[in-house]
Amino acid sequence: MSPSISTLGERELIARLQQRVSPPPAHVRIGIGDDAAVIAPARNMDDVVTTDSLVEGVHFRRDWSTAEAIGHKALAVNLSDLAAMGATPRASLLSLALPADFPLADFDALLDGYLALSAASGAVLVGGNLTRSPGPLIVDVTALGSVGHRHVLTRTGARKGDELYVTGTIGAAAAGLAMLQAGRDRERADDAARSCLERYERPEPRLRCGRIVGRTRAASAAIDLSDGFSDAAWRLAEGGNVGLVVDAAALPVAAGARAWAREASQDAVDFAMGGGEDYEIAFAVPARRRSRFRAAVRRCSGLTVTRVGVFGGAAGVWLERDGAKAPLPRAGFAHF
Amino acid sequence: MSPSISTLGERELIARLQQRVSPPPAHVRIGIGDDAAVIAPARNMDDVVTTDSLVEGVHFRRDWSTAEAIGHKALAVNLSDLAAMGATPRASLLSLALPADFPLADFDALLDGYLALSAASGAVLVGGNLTRSPGPLIVDVTALGSVGHRHVLTRTGARKGDELYVTGTIGAAAAGLAMLQAGRDRERADDAARSCLERYERPEPRLRCGRIVGRTRAASAAIDLSDGFSDAAWRLAEGGNVGLVVDAAALPVAAGARAWAREASQDAVDFAMGGGEDYEIAFAVPARRRSRFRAAVRRCSGLTVTRVGVFGGAAGVWLERDGAKAPLPRAGFAHF
Repeated sequence: MSPSISTLGERELIARLQQRVSPPPAHVRIGIGDDAAVIAPARNMDDVVTTDSLVEGVHFRRDWSTAEAIGHKALAVNLSDLAAMGATPRASLLSLALPADFPLADFDALLDGYLALSAASGAVLVGGNLTRSPGPLIVDVTALGSVGHRHVLTRTGARKGDELYVTGTIGAAAAGLAMLQAGRDRERADDAARSCLERYERPEPRLRCGRIVGRTRAASAAIDLSDGFSDAAWRLAEGGNVGLVVDAAALPVAAGARAWAREASQDAVDFAMGGGEDYEIAFAVPARRRSRFRAAVRRCSGLTVTRVGVFGGAAGVWLERDGAKAPLPRAGFAHF
Repeated sequence: MSPSISTLGERELIARLQQRVSPPPAHVRIGIGDDAAVIAPARNMDDVVTTDSLVEGVHFRRDWSTAEAIGHKALAVNLSDLAAMGATPRASLLSLALPADFPLADFDALLDGYLALSAASGAVLVGGNLTRSPGPLIVDVTALGSVGHRHVLTRTGARKGDELYVTGTIGAAAAGLAMLQAGRDRERADDAARSCLERYERPEPRLRCGRIVGRTRAASAAIDLSDGFSDAAWRLAEGGNVGLVVDAAALPVAAGARAWAREASQDAVDFAMGGGEDYEIAFAVPARRRSRFRAAVRRCSGLTVTRVGVFGGAAGVWLERDGAKAPLPRAGFAHF
């Protein structure tokens, strides 16, 4: 049994954290240890900033995910927001509310998960905050990045005639969560199921893709799928004040999500579109930019994109299936 | 009885928040409502960023503080960090973890407290996050500001011969908290006691003072007193790798803190120096800059500063009292 964090004081925990952090790059003028961090802005770029929390019992359970995975995911969900803006990560802040019984080994592992992704992405840890929690473990992250004025991707640019693309596959994270909820034995899971568990626990933000699509101005709008595909589709349509028709047959539902839905006697498309936490990106792409967009994506080693719909037509979002169109339910991941 | 937030969905709560927010100034290129916010950096300035949380049951109690005061304080403690760097606030992010039974009227009041200070300080709300909490209310804030390269105040600049100054008075917030813990009747409190309660609940970040002292380069180092005077004194001494002698008789202990300490049969100086949450600023000032520093402070309408010590001498921090010197206990506000 590892000792708990309450055997150490705040200063000792911060010292433990600082030992794990690499020396900061030049743009971080003042990092961890002062009243605030000081960062030189990227030349001729705008700052991009976002924050998102993971709350124990709401977004994760400690008996389902390792502390390392929780640390990774807390940063990943923020980097996914930067990716969807076309931004490049430059810094991050980590704010932890820790239950008194939180094991010190888990504190270290959480930092390891966070710092590995921080190092790989450029989101250098420059500050944060440690406090006690009388309840759940809460991991609150702020990520900062930069983007050129003309390269920023927003939710509001979709126009009539633009095509809707989505990266990777959808439904995998929701299937992974459902498997955990059903108590599925991880050791006996097949590859497709295991990849769903992995997607739920360790999402990979589509940073390179967002950045290249932004820089090449290949898309008119973008959003990440944090709250699920349906929610993202609705937001892009509303943001552009335009209708949207989604082709059910085209949706890249993950193999593990299809298998899970079959087992649970659910419709695979409905299941995949309604589930949150995919952390893929949906792009609106003007038809005349299609080849530019495809070329941009080819530079994102191994990442697939799929055309799944077209903007225009009647207001709202419609699902076309077997020749019939029906309104797409808006349901996204509900937080309250 | 006000209905609780759980009668609304996340989207409705965000809409409610957006109704309360003023249109953003020009430097906020993209505010609330996209994947992330986009902010134009201030010309020829560095970015300054900090984060701090208030956790119910650790930093506040809902039966002691109004929701309006909690919203104010959550932003104020972050702005105090910017002030101690000499920075000017430009933006902020608000991340709320809300218990299901949190009254909607309190949600509104918390936002009102936050947004009033946000408007007064320039820390425009540009984004954030709402999530459910299975435990305490948690208010996590990130504040962003700007500072000129040569105007930044750090904790590490104090040198032998520099003088230690502190703004305002100390001990008031600790006395206010002690009164609440003792169940003191607010209605029957005298002016000095009431001002302690006010300081505990609604600290005023010393933004103007930090900015002017930074811009005029009147100080060699600065820190805010979030964790108490003793902690700040130790950090400035260690940051400058220099000793420090504090003059007990000079310490500007708040009248209400003196009265409280007398009543509780405690030493007023010990009480005031050990208590956290003053959110005043301690400055190290080279002797040759003394008049420049005093002139800078005169521009901060009504704010007093007091010289309370001198850097130099034996390593460590020493309290000089009635002609004798003793080591100053380091005790600051403990979070774990």
